[in-house]
Amino acid sequence: MSSLAVEEEGPLANNYGDVPLNELQSVDNPEAGKWSAAVYGKHWTEVGALIDSLKDQEVLIRGRVHTTRPVSGKLTFLVVRERGFTVQCVGTLNPDYISRQMVKYVASLNRESIVDIVGVVSVPGVAIKGATQQVEVQVRKLYCVNKAMPTLPINIEDAARSEAEIEKALKEGEQLVRVNQDTRLNYRVLDVRTPANQAIFRIQSQVGAIFRQFLLSEGFVEIHTPKLIAGSSEGGSAVFKLDYKGQSACLAQSPQLHKQMSICGDFGRVFEIGPVFRAENSFTHRHLCEFTGLDVEMEIKKHYSEVMDLVDRLFVAMFDTLNEKCKKELEAVAKQYPFEPLKYKPKTLRLTFEEGVQMLKDAGVEIDPLGDLSTEAERKLGQLVLEKYDTEFYILHRYPLAVRPFYTMPCHDNPIYSNSFDVFIRGEEIISGAQRVHVPEFLAERAQACGIDVATIATYIDSFRYGAPPHGGLGVGLERVVMLFCGLNNIRKTSLYPRDPLRLAP
Amino acid sequence: MSSLAVEEEGPLANNYGDVPLNELQSVDNPEAGKWSAAVYGKHWTEVGALIDSLKDQEVLIRGRVHTTRPVSGKLTFLVVRERGFTVQCVGTLNPDYISRQMVKYVASLNRESIVDIVGVVSVPGVAIKGATQQVEVQVRKLYCVNKAMPTLPINIEDAARSEAEIEKALKEGEQLVRVNQDTRLNYRVLDVRTPANQAIFRIQSQVGAIFRQFLLSEGFVEIHTPKLIAGSSEGGSAVFKLDYKGQSACLAQSPQLHKQMSICGDFGRVFEIGPVFRAENSFTHRHLCEFTGLDVEMEIKKHYSEVMDLVDRLFVAMFDTLNEKCKKELEAVAKQYPFEPLKYKPKTLRLTFEEGVQMLKDAGVEIDPLGDLSTEAERKLGQLVLEKYDTEFYILHRYPLAVRPFYTMPCHDNPIYSNSFDVFIRGEEIISGAQRVHVPEFLAERAQACGIDVATIATYIDSFRYGAPPHGGLGVGLERVVMLFCGLNNIRKTSLYPRDPLRLAP
Repeated sequence: MSSLAVEEEGPLANNYGDVPLNELQSVDNPEAGKWSAAVYGKHWTEVGALIDSLKDQEVLIRGRVHTTRPVSGKLTFLVVRERGFTVQCVGTLNPDYISRQMVKYVASLNRESIVDIVGVVSVPGVAIKGATQQVEVQVRKLYCVNKAMPTLPINIEDAARSEAEIEKALKEGEQLVRVNQDTRLNYRVLDVRTPANQAIFRIQSQVGAIFRQFLLSEGFVEIHTPKLIAGSSEGGSAVFKLDYKGQSACLAQSPQLHKQMSICGDFGRVFEIGPVFRAENSFTHRHLCEFTGLDVEMEIKKHYSEVMDLVDRLFVAMFDTLNEKCKKELEAVAKQYPFEPLKYKPKTLRLTFEEGVQMLKDAGVEIDPLGDLSTEAERKLGQLVLEKYDTEFYILHRYPLAVRPFYTMPCHDNPIYSNSFDVFIRGEEIISGAQRVHVPEFLAERAQACGIDVATIATYIDSFRYGAPPHGGLGVGLERVVMLFCGLNNIRKTSLYPRDPLRLAP
Repeated sequence: MSSLAVEEEGPLANNYGDVPLNELQSVDNPEAGKWSAAVYGKHWTEVGALIDSLKDQEVLIRGRVHTTRPVSGKLTFLVVRERGFTVQCVGTLNPDYISRQMVKYVASLNRESIVDIVGVVSVPGVAIKGATQQVEVQVRKLYCVNKAMPTLPINIEDAARSEAEIEKALKEGEQLVRVNQDTRLNYRVLDVRTPANQAIFRIQSQVGAIFRQFLLSEGFVEIHTPKLIAGSSEGGSAVFKLDYKGQSACLAQSPQLHKQMSICGDFGRVFEIGPVFRAENSFTHRHLCEFTGLDVEMEIKKHYSEVMDLVDRLFVAMFDTLNEKCKKELEAVAKQYPFEPLKYKPKTLRLTFEEGVQMLKDAGVEIDPLGDLSTEAERKLGQLVLEKYDTEFYILHRYPLAVRPFYTMPCHDNPIYSNSFDVFIRGEEIISGAQRVHVPEFLAERAQACGIDVATIATYIDSFRYGAPPHGGLGVGLERVVMLFCGLNNIRKTSLYPRDPLRLAP
């Protein structure tokens, strides 16, 4: 109980106060206390649903105290926020509902506390700047459901500020708080309450949903492969190792081997959405030690172009749907982190690696025609492609065999190249895919040629001895898709609780 | 090239043979070889789509050699299987298409090899017993795309056999092969090709899809929380530990803490589908060291019954949809592992723990009224509930506080009990859920009372200091849902690549 609440007596004292934990759980018993009586038989209206047509109606809302603005002993403004939506509430002295004590109580609420408000919707004649909803709520009753601490490590207002606002204020001589990336991540629970972050993770959820829905509708089966595996998943060194009941084990760097085995197991077309683990010491803007992999593997009848066809249809459908369904979210992101909508074509551009190298050469960039592309070269090629083809989304295929994993199928007409591809958004790689070697003897030969101890991947190679269909697939990083679609500059912005070489918390 | 294929000359020699790897990748070039010429411009028809209405039409199919039955030098039967569907193909000597050499070639194919067949659909007057499709394919051309080894570690026919068939044969004096669980799992790639296993993992995929679709349609956000965490996820001891760049880390036993933090982060309603890790030494039919968790967390307005309402609607919708959409798959499972369809009500039965204890007592089973239920007691209660209420799916709630995790909200009217529940299918627990303590001081008090070092979960407890809405949630094991819905006797049957204390492969 707030000390303010107990001081007052009389009927108006029932209209506000802290809700005791016990009372909060007493279902539909109006006798349990003043909050119980106030909410009895009522439904909560979402803040985002408060619109003109509710004018003069009484509503019950629950949200956080975004800001309070005491004007006088008779009047306090209060902005209430629920999932990124905000509404201005007005607590005015009123002989029937609101005492002076209650106005004080409202003014004294800590930011981010959770409140229940019973009030009447009104529509002011002028635009409301400080809130998303263009109506006000005239407070009649207000109860604090849960209190936040008085001083927060981050203010949501500060965390929601764009770089442009900070710079504009600076020019006007005002120094606004800039919350840096590490502080944000340390207090992620507060940081994700900003409109941009609420939007980013709703977009991420949509990306997963679209990916899945598309694949399910094309006859793919969703699988779940083990993350705990013996040996290292692709023969790489950057794995997290652990003891598994006395056996040495590691965390899967990708579901590569198991998704291929599932194709050998006759599922025809499979996909998986799950964590992948990389123990690399990368401190770039686009690497994480744990991220969410979107993986696909499918039988092919003839050619790896069947996999590229899928990529084309899947991602074009994804971008179309995001632009259509996530308008509000994309606007919320752009408000804090301005970006231009992604340029892409209904039919995705495909270039061969050789063509890419030639484009770079023509632009004066000399690179090893059989080496991998550096991040810089990828970015440059992205620029050249944008200028020439007006698209920021394209497929580069027929990579040199030497720069791809051992299980990649060489090109039948020139084994220096391979039946493989990468896909780029805004000059950065997001997808890697290929046809796989499905002939066990050849697979063993390729593994050896790449310096891998065949004994360590015997189970995998054996899977192909029981009859294996030609197949191919691809892997995508969910966080990268969201980052690059929204033109964000750091993958830590699109991972809810990112893990990098220095960060293991929260 | 098969030695048989090269012996022959003349036009009929073009109608069969092994497809060289190079030719297999040469897209749409009829000049590349005889297979390329044969499939040029054609589309593959799925084996499952071969029906009466295709009579007299020429089709191209790809599948595995399920069985071959040479009748004479002029006739060989061949059953071809694709994703669980089978069709009988007939290779008969024919002056226009099939030579004696070709009949021999067909008869010599190893089981499980992948073949492309061009043939004409015919409809025999009698029922075909040995195949799912009730049409035949009169072979005109046949090419082997990939060869299986001659002797397989498991025959699919053996792996697909029901216990009843084995016992029936035994009574008739015939000893059929029984493939035991460990052999199956060692050669999982072959084992999952059986119709029952194909069905099980298609049902599993559906369970995930229904779960997600239902929650997305109710405004839930799909999240991905880290599996690599500092400390232990719920203070338990059965965790896998590892070194994370010099810090000690462990694998999350559940997304419990992070999903609650996401609620504190204003996502309102969240869910996650992902791996959870338990280092327990359990060798039961229902425990795994790694399984797929379906996790839900949501704000509640008043009472934990809001979470039970969700469970009710979600799972009834799931069962309804499975029964409707997965008829064929459920039949395929039941054919090898007979089971009765799950009995459940449109509105799920709820009993309190006290009522459950009383039912057991009335039936002569004395148990500790404030202890947890043993597996045996759960099973017995399941029987009693089935007899009394005619349902195999019910919710038991208000568990004793002492048997639940520290973050469980005690009952407001009697803190010996808690706002928690378990859900049972066929007498086994599949879901555990509860309202959580959202008041930081009380949460710390509860943790201490449960013997947990509060310092190790400081970040988690701090999350509630910035204002936390009342909330609750639940966790479900995907493999258990499929196992119990299908009345299977071992969770290893519903995990694609199971992990238990002794098994880390394949």
